[in-house]
Order: sequence, then C-alpha cells, then structure tokens
Amino acid sequence: MSNRVVTFGEIMLRLAPEGYYRFLQADSFGAVYGGGEANVAVSLAQFGIDAAFVSKLPDHDIGQAAVNSLRRWGVDTSCILRGGDRVGIYYLERGASQRPSKVIYDRAGSSFAMSKRTEYDWEKLFAGASWFHLTGITPALGEELSAASLEAVKAAKRLGLTVSCDINYRSKLWDKETAGRVMSELLPYVDIYIGGRGQEDELFGIHTELRSEDDYSAYEPAVKELCRRFGFKQAAMTLRTTVSSNVNKWAALLCDGSSFSYSREYEIDIVDRVGGGDSFAAGLIYASLSGMSRQDTVDFAAAASCLKLTVEGDQNVVTADEVMQLVKSGSAQIKR
Amino acid sequence: MSNRVVTFGEIMLRLAPEGYYRFLQADSFGAVYGGGEANVAVSLAQFGIDAAFVSKLPDHDIGQAAVNSLRRWGVDTSCILRGGDRVGIYYLERGASQRPSKVIYDRAGSSFAMSKRTEYDWEKLFAGASWFHLTGITPALGEELSAASLEAVKAAKRLGLTVSCDINYRSKLWDKETAGRVMSELLPYVDIYIGGRGQEDELFGIHTELRSEDDYSAYEPAVKELCRRFGFKQAAMTLRTTVSSNVNKWAALLCDGSSFSYSREYEIDIVDRVGGGDSFAAGLIYASLSGMSRQDTVDFAAAASCLKLTVEGDQNVVTADEVMQLVKSGSAQIKR
Amino acid sequence: MSNRVVTFGEIMLRLAPEGYYRFLQADSFGAVYGGGEANVAVSLAQFGIDAAFVSKLPDHDIGQAAVNSLRRWGVDTSCILRGGDRVGIYYLERGASQRPSKVIYDRAGSSFAMSKRTEYDWEKLFAGASWFHLTGITPALGEELSAASLEAVKAAKRLGLTVSCDINYRSKLWDKETAGRVMSELLPYVDIYIGGRGQEDELFGIHTELRSEDDYSAYEPAVKELCRRFGFKQAAMTLRTTVSSNVNKWAALLCDGSSFSYSREYEIDIVDRVGGGDSFAAGLIYASLSGMSRQDTVDFAAAASCLKLTVEGDQNVVTADEVMQLVKSGSAQIKR
Amino acid sequence: MSNRVVTFGEIMLRLAPEGYYRFLQADSFGAVYGGGEANVAVSLAQFGIDAAFVSKLPDHDIGQAAVNSLRRWGVDTSCILRGGDRVGIYYLERGASQRPSKVIYDRAGSSFAMSKRTEYDWEKLFAGASWFHLTGITPALGEELSAASLEAVKAAKRLGLTVSCDINYRSKLWDKETAGRVMSELLPYVDIYIGGRGQEDELFGIHTELRSEDDYSAYEPAVKELCRRFGFKQAAMTLRTTVSSNVNKWAALLCDGSSFSYSREYEIDIVDRVGGGDSFAAGLIYASLSGMSRQDTVDFAAAASCLKLTVEGDQNVVTADEVMQLVKSGSAQIKR
Amino acid sequence: MSNRVVTFGEIMLRLAPEGYYRFLQADSFGAVYGGGEANVAVSLAQFGIDAAFVSKLPDHDIGQAAVNSLRRWGVDTSCILRGGDRVGIYYLERGASQRPSKVIYDRAGSSFAMSKRTEYDWEKLFAGASWFHLTGITPALGEELSAASLEAVKAAKRLGLTVSCDINYRSKLWDKETAGRVMSELLPYVDIYIGGRGQEDELFGIHTELRSEDDYSAYEPAVKELCRRFGFKQAAMTLRTTVSSNVNKWAALLCDGSSFSYSREYEIDIVDRVGGGDSFAAGLIYASLSGMSRQDTVDFAAAASCLKLTVEGDQNVVTADEVMQLVKSGSAQIKR
Amino acid sequence: MSNRVVTFGEIMLRLAPEGYYRFLQADSFGAVYGGGEANVAVSLAQFGIDAAFVSKLPDHDIGQAAVNSLRRWGVDTSCILRGGDRVGIYYLERGASQRPSKVIYDRAGSSFAMSKRTEYDWEKLFAGASWFHLTGITPALGEELSAASLEAVKAAKRLGLTVSCDINYRSKLWDKETAGRVMSELLPYVDIYIGGRGQEDELFGIHTELRSEDDYSAYEPAVKELCRRFGFKQAAMTLRTTVSSNVNKWAALLCDGSSFSYSREYEIDIVDRVGGGDSFAAGLIYASLSGMSRQDTVDFAAAASCLKLTVEGDQNVVTADEVMQLVKSGSAQIKR
Repeated sequence: MSNRVVTFGEIMLRLAPEGYYRFLQADSFGAVYGGGEANVAVSLAQFGIDAAFVSKLPDHDIGQAAVNSLRRWGVDTSCILRGGDRVGIYYLERGASQRPSKVIYDRAGSSFAMSKRTEYDWEKLFAGASWFHLTGITPALGEELSAASLEAVKAAKRLGLTVSCDINYRSKLWDKETAGRVMSELLPYVDIYIGGRGQEDELFGIHTELRSEDDYSAYEPAVKELCRRFGFKQAAMTLRTTVSSNVNKWAALLCDGSSFSYSREYEIDIVDRVGGGDSFAAGLIYASLSGMSRQDTVDFAAAASCLKLTVEGDQNVVTADEVMQLVKSGSAQIKR
Repeated sequence: MSNRVVTFGEIMLRLAPEGYYRFLQADSFGAVYGGGEANVAVSLAQFGIDAAFVSKLPDHDIGQAAVNSLRRWGVDTSCILRGGDRVGIYYLERGASQRPSKVIYDRAGSSFAMSKRTEYDWEKLFAGASWFHLTGITPALGEELSAASLEAVKAAKRLGLTVSCDINYRSKLWDKETAGRVMSELLPYVDIYIGGRGQEDELFGIHTELRSEDDYSAYEPAVKELCRRFGFKQAAMTLRTTVSSNVNKWAALLCDGSSFSYSREYEIDIVDRVGGGDSFAAGLIYASLSGMSRQDTVDFAAAASCLKLTVEGDQNVVTADEVMQLVKSGSAQIKR
Repeated sequence: MSNRVVTFGEIMLRLAPEGYYRFLQADSFGAVYGGGEANVAVSLAQFGIDAAFVSKLPDHDIGQAAVNSLRRWGVDTSCILRGGDRVGIYYLERGASQRPSKVIYDRAGSSFAMSKRTEYDWEKLFAGASWFHLTGITPALGEELSAASLEAVKAAKRLGLTVSCDINYRSKLWDKETAGRVMSELLPYVDIYIGGRGQEDELFGIHTELRSEDDYSAYEPAVKELCRRFGFKQAAMTLRTTVSSNVNKWAALLCDGSSFSYSREYEIDIVDRVGGGDSFAAGLIYASLSGMSRQDTVDFAAAASCLKLTVEGDQNVVTADEVMQLVKSGSAQIKR
Repeated sequence: MSNRVVTFGEIMLRLAPEGYYRFLQADSFGAVYGGGEANVAVSLAQFGIDAAFVSKLPDHDIGQAAVNSLRRWGVDTSCILRGGDRVGIYYLERGASQRPSKVIYDRAGSSFAMSKRTEYDWEKLFAGASWFHLTGITPALGEELSAASLEAVKAAKRLGLTVSCDINYRSKLWDKETAGRVMSELLPYVDIYIGGRGQEDELFGIHTELRSEDDYSAYEPAVKELCRRFGFKQAAMTLRTTVSSNVNKWAALLCDGSSFSYSREYEIDIVDRVGGGDSFAAGLIYASLSGMSRQDTVDFAAAASCLKLTVEGDQNVVTADEVMQLVKSGSAQIKR
Repeated sequence: MSNRVVTFGEIMLRLAPEGYYRFLQADSFGAVYGGGEANVAVSLAQFGIDAAFVSKLPDHDIGQAAVNSLRRWGVDTSCILRGGDRVGIYYLERGASQRPSKVIYDRAGSSFAMSKRTEYDWEKLFAGASWFHLTGITPALGEELSAASLEAVKAAKRLGLTVSCDINYRSKLWDKETAGRVMSELLPYVDIYIGGRGQEDELFGIHTELRSEDDYSAYEPAVKELCRRFGFKQAAMTLRTTVSSNVNKWAALLCDGSSFSYSREYEIDIVDRVGGGDSFAAGLIYASLSGMSRQDTVDFAAAASCLKLTVEGDQNVVTADEVMQLVKSGSAQIKR
Repeated sequence: MSNRVVTFGEIMLRLAPEGYYRFLQADSFGAVYGGGEANVAVSLAQFGIDAAFVSKLPDHDIGQAAVNSLRRWGVDTSCILRGGDRVGIYYLERGASQRPSKVIYDRAGSSFAMSKRTEYDWEKLFAGASWFHLTGITPALGEELSAASLEAVKAAKRLGLTVSCDINYRSKLWDKETAGRVMSELLPYVDIYIGGRGQEDELFGIHTELRSEDDYSAYEPAVKELCRRFGFKQAAMTLRTTVSSNVNKWAALLCDGSSFSYSREYEIDIVDRVGGGDSFAAGLIYASLSGMSRQDTVDFAAAASCLKLTVEGDQNVVTADEVMQLVKSGSAQIKR
C-alpha cells in the first residue's frame, strides 16, 4: 500500500529577530516559511515518506519562495493552488529564561485564508494517498475553511484514508465555544487524535484534576473519554512542561481507547520551540505507517519532537535514523 | 515664525533581502520602516527642522518599532494614532545593472489604510505648524484617506500653513483616472507642487514631446500649465533618468509660474534608490523655510536627493551641511 | 505631580564581539550605547515615564549616534550638552560558564569626563522634574564631576525632588577610601539608597558576616545602619549570586529604615549581564512613582532586573506590563 | 512532445568569501552548490521546463544538501546516484576592478569523478526526455566519465533526443590536445554547439584573426567550419569581453551552418560572474524548445545570461518573463 | 634550558554552520583551521611557550590561510612544508541538548596525508627543542605517516626531548587492531601518555569495570598497567561525561606510575566542544615545563581544558593567568 | 645583504560600519588594525620581505589583538613595546558616489602617542636591517615622537640603512607651518621621498600651476626642487584623481633628481580607499630592494597600490606575483 500522506493548511512567512533580540531591537528578520500542517509534511519527507501539502499561495515571488522552501525538503508541492494576494505572516520573538517568547500574527487576508471550499477537489487531491492529516488551525480560519476541512475528512474516510488530527487550539484565532463546536463536527471522521494536555478541557469540557505538573496518569480518564466520545482508534497527548523559555520537559502518552503507553520524558535545552507538536504528529504518522507497536510509536514520536526543539526553524530536519538513535540511547556523543 | 512641518501618510515595514539577493534566495530580510511622507519628516529632522508625522500604527511591538525608528531620527511622533491590526509591508528586491528592482506591496488592511477621516483633528494636529506636506499616496489608499487629505489641505490653508504636495502617482494603488480626479480636488489648496516628469501627463493629460531623455526644457510649457491650472506658487519637477539599476542621472527644475531654475545634473552610483523624491521634497521645504532663492532651492533639493541615493534605507540621513558641501563642490574627498 | 525623572551620567560606546567570541578572535564589534544612568532613563521611558538624561557628548557623528540611541527609546535628550572630543568606550567580552566576562575601559578624556561643574545649570535642568537619580560612577570620574554631583543633589533637595543613588562602586575608577569619602558627602542629600551587597562594607566599613551566600537576612543590620548613618528614607540591596557566567541568581531587599521586604529569588539563564543594577533602580523608581507598596516595589524592581538579564544590550527594553506579568506568574509561556 | 531536458555533470560545493574579501582574509565562506550542467538544469526549471540532473553524490549530509539545493529550484533529482566519499569543492574569490577573480579547485576524488560508466543506464535515464545537454567538463574528469559521456550522446541520438554541448574548455582539468581529441569523438553526436570565443582555436585549431575585441563577425568562418566539421545543426558563440572584474560586455551569435544572427550587446555591472555560459545554454535550449526563431533564440539566450551576471550564485534564478522583458526593453525600471 | 615544543600533525579547514544550524540548513560555513597537534601548539603559544608546528600544506591561498591562522596565534610556522594539492577538511555540525554534534571528514588526499616520511628531517626540526608532542591521529593517516611518527619519537628520545602522546583514537580513521599495533610500537618512546577514558581498553585491552560514570578511581589499575607496559613516566586520563550536547562534566587524573592526583571536576556549559583534549595536553605540557607539582599540573591542565570548552573554535585562546585564576577560584565574576 | 625593513609608527583600531552604512545607522563596526607604517610592513611581508614594525601598544587584549593582526600577515612584532593605556581608534565611514568617505580620529592618549623618545633604542631596533621607512604621521603626534623620528633617521643613516619617507601630511594632526618645519629637519636624512601631489606645496611652498588635473608633467620642476633642496636620491609622487567615492584614477612618477619615469594610469572601482599611499611605498621599497629599474619600480609600485584599492581593509594583501601580473597585462580574467 502507498505511503502517501496529505496535509492541508496554511504556510506562513515567519519573521524572527536574530538570537535573543526583541522586536524593538531588530533591524533584520530571519525568514523561514512554516505552519503546522506544512511542518508535518516536511518532517515526514525527511523520514522518507511521500508527503504532499495542500494549500493556496499567491502567484508572486514571496508565494514562490514558500513553495521552494517545501520543495527543498522534498515535499510534493504540486497540489498547492496559486492565487490571491498575500502570504500570511507571523512575527516570532524568542524568549529567554523568565522572558516568554512572543508571537504577533499578521495572517488575515492571506491567499489561503481567503480561499473557498470549492477550490479543493478532494477526490483528486487524495489520489494515491493513504493518510490525511489536518489540525485545528485550518478550521479556525473561517467558515470556508472549516467547511473545506469537513469535506476533506469526509472524503478521506470515504476513500479509505487514515485521518489524524492535531487539535492545536489557538485562542488568538477563535474562541473556545466555536472551536469546540466546529471540531466536534470534524472529529467523528478522525481516526487518531493528537492534542496538548488541557485542550480537551478547553474545547470539550473534559476536566482533569492534577496533583502536580508531572502527574501524567491523571489524564487517562480524560483521554479515554475523548476516544469514547469521538470514536478514535488512538489518542495521543503531548505533555509539555515549560521550565523556562530555555528549558522544557517533553513526554507523551498514547491510548488505544483502553490501554496506555508512555514515552520517556526529555528535559530539553531549547534551540527553537516552534513546531514541537507538529514533529510529534509526524513521528506518530511515520511510526504508524511503519507498523510500529503502540509503545514504539509513542517513543518514536516523543523522540522526534525532542529533536525538533534542538533544531532551528519550524521544521524538524532530522532523519528517522537520528530519531531511532535517540530512542535507543538518549546519548549525544559526537561522532568522529 | 515657527519651523514646524507636519507630514501625513503611512509608514510601512520594508523587508529587503541583503545585497543583491533575490526574493527567492533570501533567508533573511533587512527591516527598516519607511514611507514617502515619513521619509520627508526624517530628512527634515536631520536638517534641524521640527518635523511631526501624522499617521496611525497598531498598538503592538511592530507598530512601536515603527514609532521608535522615527524617534531615533528626531521626528515628533506624538501625533501618531495607535490602534488597528497591522503595519503595512513592502518587500523590496534590489536590482542590478539590467535587472530592475522589484517591489511587492502587502499594505492592504493596515492600521493607517483602515483609519477614518474623523480620527484626524487637523486643527489640533497643525497647532504651531507652518508647513504641511502630503503626497499622492495617501489619497490613493481609499475614500476615507482621500477625504482626510482633502480636509487636511483645507484646514492647512485656513490656518495659514504653506502646503506642498508630491504627486507620487503609483499605478499599483489606483488608476490614472481616479488619481487625476481626486488629486484635482486637492491641488487647488496646494502652494508647491512636486512631481516626477510625466506624471502631469498621466494624471492631467498635460503632454510633452521630448526630443531626447535630457531635453529638460521641453517640460517648461507643461509645468507652466500646471501652475496655471491649479494656482501653484511654485512647481518642481524631478528629472530622473535610469541608466541602469546601478546608475541614475538626477536633476530638477523649479518654476515660479513663469521663470525656471535648473539644478546641476548628477550621475549617481546608486546605493539605495528608494526615497529619492522624498528627499527632494524635504530639501525643497528646508530651502524654502530657510529663505533661499529659487536657484539655491532647486540646487539644495537636487543635491539632497543625490546624496539620498548614496545612503542605505528609505531615508536621507544627511545634514544640511553635507548637502551644502555637495552643492558647492561636487567633490567626494575623504577628510582626515 | 509630574513624573519627570532626571538622570546624570556618561553614555559610552560599548564594543562587544559577537556571541561568545573573545576579544582576540573578534573582527567586528556590536555597537550599542550605554551607561548606568542612561540605562535607568531608557528603562523608565519604556515604563512610560518622562525621563531626561543629562550628560555631554561630542558634536560629531559618534556623539550624535549616542543621542539618537536614546531618542529611539523615548528618552528626552534635550539636556545633553554637545562639545569635547570623544565618546568614552568600553569593550565587553561575554563570558561563558567558568570563563568570566571581561571589560576594558577606554573612557578617559571623554567629553563627559572633561566637562566642568559650571556647565550644568541644575535649576534649569531640574525644571518640571520630580525625581533625580545618580550613581557612584559619575563622582568617580574626577573632581569636577564629583563637585557637579554634589551640586546636583543639593539643588535637587532644594527643589523638592526625590533623590535616589545607586552606589555602584567601580574599583577600576577609584579606590575605596576616596569613594567612601566622596560618597559620604553626597549621601546625606539622598532619599533612596541602592547598592549591591558588600559595597556598604567596601566603602563605609559596615561589615556583615554571612553563613552562606543566600543568607540574605544577615544584611539587615548593615542596611539599617546605612539608613541611620545617612538618613535614607529607603535603602535597597540587590542580591546577585554568580552561579556561572551563564547563570545568576537575583533577588533584592528593600528597607524603610526599620522593616524589610524581600523579592522572590530568580535563577536566570543570562543573555546579557550588563545593566542588571540599572534596571533594578529604574524598576524601583517607577514603582515608587506609581505609589506601590514596599513589597510591590521590591517585587517589581527585582522582576524588572530579572527580565533585563534576558535582554541583549545594556538597556532593559521591557514594558511595565511585561514586568507585572512576571511578578504575577513567573511563567514564560509563548502566547499565540 | 515532452519538454524534458536531461543534463549530466558534477555539482560541487562552492565556498566563497563574502563580498570582496580575499581567501586570506576570510573567516567564513558562503556555501552554494553549483556546476555547469546543474546550473543549466536550474535555469531551465525556472523557465518552467521539466529538467532532470544526472550525477553522483555521497550519501551523507553534504551530499544531501547538494540534492536539496536542486530540489529547491524544482530540478528533478531522482536520477542522482548516491554513494562515494565526497562532494567536490571549488573555492571562489571575487575579483574587483583590476584584481581578477580566483578559483581553487578541490574536486579530485569526488563521488562523481570516481563514478563508473557502468553506473549510468542511459536508456532509463533518458526515458521521456527530448533533449540532452552536456559540457566539456564532464569528459575532462577522467576516462570513465569521457566514456560515459560518449555513451550518453550515442544513446541520446539513438533515442531521438536533441543533443547540445557547451564546449567549456578548462585548462586546469586537461590539456588542449587531450581535450581536442576527446571532444572530437563526442561532437559528431551533438546537434547544437555552444562555445566561448577562441575555444574552437584552442581545441580544434580553427583560428580567427581579430582586428579588435568587438570584431565579432570575424568569427563567422570559424563557426561555419565548426558546423561543417562536426555536422552541427546550430552553433552558438558567446562573446564576452572583460572590461574589468566589475564590468563585462556580453553578446552572442548563432549560426545554422550558413546564416548568422547576433544578439544585442550588454555592458553589465557584474554581481556574480560564474554561470554566464550555463545560463546562455539554458536560454538557448528553452528558446529552441519554445520554437523561437534563430534571432529570437540568440536574443533570449543572451538576455538570460546578461541577467545571470546580475544574480548572486552560480545559478540563473530568473523567469522566462523576466528575460523577455529585458529582450523587449533593456530597461531596469523599478515597478511599484 | 629551552622551552621549545614541537608538535607534528595535520591542520584542517573546519567548516561549521553558524550557531545550531544543521548541515542541511546551512548557506554559509564558519571557517577556522585546526587539528589536534596544531591546537596544542596554539594553546602553548598563548601560554608564552615557543611552539613550533611541523606539517605540510599546499602552496596555494587556502594553504597559506592555514599558515596565517597559526602565525596569528604566535606559532612558529617555519617548519611547515609546502606542496601537494589540498587542505584536509572536516565539516562540523554543533549539537544541542539531545541532538549530538556531527563530524564529516573530507581529509583524504591532503598535502599532509600524502607526505612522505623522507620529507621530515627530524634532527633539523628538533633543533633547539626540549619537548615533542604527537597524537594517535597522525599515525592513523597511513603507513608513511606512522613511519614518520615512529622516526620522530625515536629521534626525539635520541636528542633528549621529552615526548608526550595523546592517544586520540579515531574509529573513522583506522580500526582498533591496527591502532593498537601501531601505537604499541610508538609508545615505548613516549614519556607522558594522555588518553580519554576507555581508549586503553579499545586499543590495548586494558579493561575497567565501572560502577558508575563518575567512579573515576576504578581506572587506577588500568592506568598503572599502561605505565607498566609502556614505561611512561606519567600517564594522564581525561574524564569527560557527556550530560548533553550543551553540558559536559570534565575532570582528569595524573599518575606517576604509582600515585594519583585528581583535578577538580567541572560541569561546563559548552560553547565549542572541539579541542578539549588538545587543550588538556597543552596545559599538561606547560605545567610540566613550568616545574609544577603533579597535583598542580593536573589542576592546571583540567582548568585549561574547562576554559577551552567555553571558547569558540578548535583552539584554546586563553592565557596561563586566566587558567591559574580558574584553578584558584572557579569564579566567573565580571571585572570592571 | 639583508632584506630587513623596519617601519615606525602607530597601529590603530579601525572601526567601520558595514558596507555603505553611515555612522548614524551602524549597530556594528568591522574591526581591523591599521596605520600607515604598519600597512607598509604588512604589504612588504606579503612580498616576502622580512618586515619589522616598531611601535607601542597597551598590554591588554585590544593591544594584543593588534599585535596578532600583524603576526597573521607575517610581520615581525618582536620590536613592539607594550604598555600604556589605549589603542588609538579611527572611525571610518565609506563614501559612495557623490558622498565622501568620513574619518573621525580618536587617537589622542594612545600608548604610542604617549611613548617617549627614550623608549626606542635605535641601534638595537635596526640590528640586521637594511631599510628604514617612516611617514609624516609619527612626527605629527607630538614632540616626543618627532624627536624619536629624528633620532631614528639619524641612526639609520649612521648605520647605513636606506631611508624612505612618505610625507603623508594630515591637517587634522598638525598645521602646515609646524609640519613644514619639523619635516624639513628630518628630510635631509632621507634617501627616498614619497608624497601625494600638492603636499610639497602645502609644506614647503613649492608651487605647481596645473592646466588640468592630469597635467602630470607640470609637477616635474617641483619634484626636482624637492630633490635638490633635501638631497633625495629619488622622489616619487602619487597622482590620485577622485572621480567619485567609487572611482579613482591612480598613477605615479619617480624622479632620480633629473630624469622621470611615469607609471600607467589606472581607473579603479574602489573597494577600500584606505592605504593606497602605503601600498605604493611598500611597492617602491620592494622594487628597489629587488634591484628593479626606475621604470619597473614606479610600474610595480603603482600597480601594487591599484590592487590595494580593490582589497578590503587598510592593508595590501597581495603577492608580488599578483602585482607583476597586473604590470604585465592589466587583465582581470578569472582563472579556472
């Protein structure tokens, strides 16, 4: 069977001052192109998966630069529509120690956000694919895109693709109520749920009482309830703890509806904190497509996202071998 | 009498790849904040003039960075409204030799473009001012801003300010017909007209037949007609010739309705071609406020803009002394 | 009442190799302009305070660049005298882990150091001001400037300003005996004392025996004695512990002569260790002007300086809101 | 008919000091990946052609980086063999004015240079292709690669592809005699010859006496003789004149065996002088595939290479539209 | 007696992406020149020792740049042969947290690797020297260089020089068996052995069972056995523990055949992990030449290498005073 | 006979904004170390001459960095005294087109400027030397250094060295009268005079009337008069014409007291205009030491300085071969 994975979402221009400079101090911005679903596609391509990204970008040089950035990493960009006026932007200021990172979105009116449901022909876009991945960001961009997302998951189910969804709730894009309502329509068509801890509470009111920040098993009833309510085959929860802007703890659990597997917990000196969840999703998809066990899957996905946080940019430029090596050893020995 | 000059317009974030890199090659952008009317204010402040800039910027860090960039150069930013969502952007790719420079605008929906005429209280904004400068860009940004511009020039006349206007026609913002109609309403309130050659033809159908690119005196009838039609006290025309992306010729003429003065012509190895016209306007305003003769005024203004093209960024970071030195000598001797 | 704060001191050009490069490896220097009292003014301006800086700078471009750097941050630079020959310089090499940071001063003969007491007309400089802040650095620069400092604090008291002084003893500038003697003349005119721990011992022989580095309450008798001896309304002591060049602990105490308030202690991954004390002083001044309680004041000031250590450059480019957020939560969550 | 073009050659890591720094002054190198045939493929891909590159690269990250650089520009890299030890390197120092550019090759032992003729299965590599382009560099890399080149052109002819060859004689790689002998075996299978002026003399002893450097028509007999001797359908000669390291003149002629077309001559302020000939070849191939006339073809190819010299890097990152615009106007007006 | 130290080995061009960028993300490489034995010479020269480096480099600009890099640091380069084709290269990717650093060697065929034993006239090269230092890297580069190394140590012994050898086993250059055999021939001529822990097991089968990673005294029998077997006057073992790519622990022991001295253990936030062992060797040689006690020697050498890990590049750009200061205090206080 | 050349002067830290940025725009400075006499030594060392530099530098890291910069280029730094407080600085802003370059000196109080005549033991410093070169800058730095210069030239003559002097009048350092008087005392001990055109008029009142800027032969009487008045064996005059900040014309003449030789005239696209005269002096010294004819000498020296203007920094990093190649061809062909 094919290993073609399709993702659907927006790719934005990320403008970030160098190093630890603040927005107010910057006289240049590092420019990379990223976005949740694009990041998943890039990571999958590094793992050797045939990954295609569906989106819309303007037909000018900034739009082309976004396309080229994906081609460079081996993502199939032939499904990207061209047209509209602008590439969405997000400004990123890197935090340090007690100073948090800061994001300013300037994504309204982008070619993708203005695109219509009718522009996406899912039968054609899913040709030859075995997996479809989406996130909660795309439906948050307006009615057309939540409708397009719903059509996409329905088509994916109809065509026999596995569907995964990273819930990825962003409070700057929509409120909890709308998000809960819209996502509740989509999730019945989803096989594998991925979410950060607490998002099941914010969106669906499934509350967990924690005794401490690392009381991970306390989430088990909530995850089971998610599986029950939406009929997921699997549900994964990422368990990030922000020690400081420089140090995060990172672990994950994976549930098949009844049993749980837990990854190792990593304490990570962060190079770039964006894209952690996306790299986890890519790791999970790769591991599933490779037929790994539930335990190996959550180990692989957590190790993949651990490595992401040590890599510059939105995207997890690491190979499956590198991830496996971390799963096996945890070591960081120079090789020479 | 006061030497306070007020300008009104948009300041944008300019994102430009370093050196001669193309958009498609860039992985960082130099970031400066500029815009026609802001550039005039900055140049005037370098000449020691009390220059204030009226605009609107969002109340977040990118907006603040734009404010700070003006404060750095000594511009009075206390008249800038804060609110709205975004700082307009323009992407700039520097051309070289036969390859032209390239601009991609991403300015729709900016805080300034979305601002309302009623937000600008001209009586208050003009307090203590003796000169008002605007350009044809602001009225191009929509009905609210063309209305605001009209109210501004009317108020300025009423309050006894001198009004200068750089016609600055931008075909990407509006068509010739609309531009001609809107500007024709504004110009009767303007004392001093500034325009690049040919714009009087595009907007007002005042045609000139040239025998060669440097047949500058051929424009005299057109300039006189401009003065006649709109009642200008003075009209200046900048005379740029693009030899290549690296080399421009630059001269100017100034007319008092009947007589003409011509500046020297400069052949310039260009460092940054943006802001040439703005620096000319600032030079003309400064020279006028300083009581220079018509000949000295056009000489000063042309030398100012010659120097601008040798300076990085949108803005003419040169002093009046430096301009005077070029007027006098044309020499570029190192001093040590 | 007005919220105008005046500070008095030197602003220098800081030349620092990029990143962790040593002086011997550098082929470029990052250039920022800073100095204790200027840093206080900049931080206050970010908090929305009307902050003015009194100093002297040469009338050439390097002097102007220093002025512009302050204008950018909203500091009132109209009180800066222009003249003399040079901008003082300090070279800064960033330490790492066990390798300490290194400073080489090249400030002798600067315009400020050569300025005369008679150049400063305090009645005029203090017009409209409610607070005067100075440090022990300015009096260390020679007899003229210690005389000027004394005249300044006397005038400030006479005019009803609150006077704060950061003791800031620098052994490279003067010896303990001279420093103790000169500062003892100034301090009776000071309302609020700020000092690093141990400086009261070095300068005034007020010794504290510590059982451990974090035995902070042991300093209470010494701080009370300072208040008693010089008649301070309040005395603050910053409590820095250098874990390594990359990690510092930072806390503070504030005493009203009899009672003590302690801030939280922060363990900080350092981005730039210069200006910690200056940002503390600015935080304390802002909190006092805002009418905060003693506890809130020391909390605000300590949090402000914690954030400073996470910001590049000498100056604390953070808003009062950002400081308050750290006071409240200590969290460093990305916002999106 | 298909528009698939296959090129065959080496792609190297180019290490160049920034700006005008000399090798001895450099403490960093800009890194791009380029080589004659790869450059042709990249340029063709920018023109919208399906371009594939055949080569061999090591299976490590530096090899992968070379692959990714081609993918970014849309080149089909699926035909690149992986294995061997190293990516060939060339060091490039940019000249200025009277100081010439300098190249140091470090390409011996590269994966490509060590590859064997038997590794290339031309039937398979040419599947679906209509054009094959090679240069005189590949045969210069040793017997295996000259044999592979010969097999390639034979297979191409057999399979009905058009074959073009850029003679590209490099004296640092082989001597004139060997080059002349080996190329004489290959050229009978070539349809379109491309060469710099004088190379027909160095390799095949076809001498031209010039009255002056721009006495271009003097080359006509030599070009006709080339066509006659090797049976070319067309022969193009590029006519570069080095005014200085910063300024080159560039023109070209194209002959169908009897008649000649000449391009306009461009005087170019050079940004990066590498890859001029390659961009000419790509322009010629594109124009031919587009069915342009001989005159339009040489105009397009010359304009393409003119633009290349204004672009950083080895590769001509310009679109066919941009080339057409230069052909039509020669203007370099900013568009806004 | 003289303090001239001679080292013998290869100096390579190190190409490393900036900061934490991966090879696949790099578009420039920082360029420094380094290699084990050259690094020892540089460190010794910073300590004021007359250090000479024996090697071979090509007679072109890249070779000259390597020479100049050593001259800059005060190393005597008059013994470097010139000729051959290339400077060996190693690509270095800096790891972070759980992501290990990565090295790709491209050193085959270098001028040094191709040099012949007969090119080195040891009598002449050792003129005036009192110490010879080599490592296990040079003999790994082929038969000629292992022969040259053997001739060198024999000559050194004959001429009365002290000989030190850093075992420095690199599995990418040769296998354990060959390494063990070749080094066993050399070591009888060596006075002072330096090795990382475990290398005595890999090469000579002297096994140590550890109860924990910091069970350093467990190595004592192995170190004694090394001394016994090869007749070393002293044997040093460096004790590195990789906590993560960012944090290493570092200590060392020194044995005179029977008794042991241990350095303090440093936990180090790493700036550049290359060259730790080399800086240890340099510290040991300097301390020995200075007549320090065994305890002082191992303290100095360990502190020297601790500082190295906080310095960018391969080379330990620190003075003996700076090392002594760390030995005494461990503090990292800024000095001003 | 020996080829050891001794030069005597100051080496300063040059701080220059990148590219064409103005002082007011800079947030970093490129840092190189240079000065007239040091530049001559560096250029001579590149030509293979044993060049020693006599000066005084502080005993801190910035002083050491200056020493290391000279060592890197092969200059003998063993004659540099260490002590005093500071390295002199000059700020350099690169001009462009009509905007002139700008220099701000901050050199007062440097270790060299404060050094005493008694610190220089010329007998010892000239040991083994055959040539002494000084310039008019050192005597301009005060009485001690003009006395030291006079002692130096007297000692040089006594010891049989050839003495060359580049008159190098700097109006920012001293006035014409003092300069003329002091230099008149020194010049009788000088064998070879080097000066820019017009300096003989400014200092010694030897006036030339020019018909045009390139009326070079008009200077012949003045040069002869110089030779006659001071008894020079040879006198060279450099003939620079500033076309713009980007373009200079450069030529030279050399006179043996009666006859004249003229170099070719170069029109140069300037990379870095500092150090042109110094590179000319080095070329003249090298050519003289190599026994070249008067014509060959002036050709070599002029070509050397032409190349300098195409090289970044103060110093002429070119080999004698590269100069010879320009003398022969004038060509700037890439070699590959």
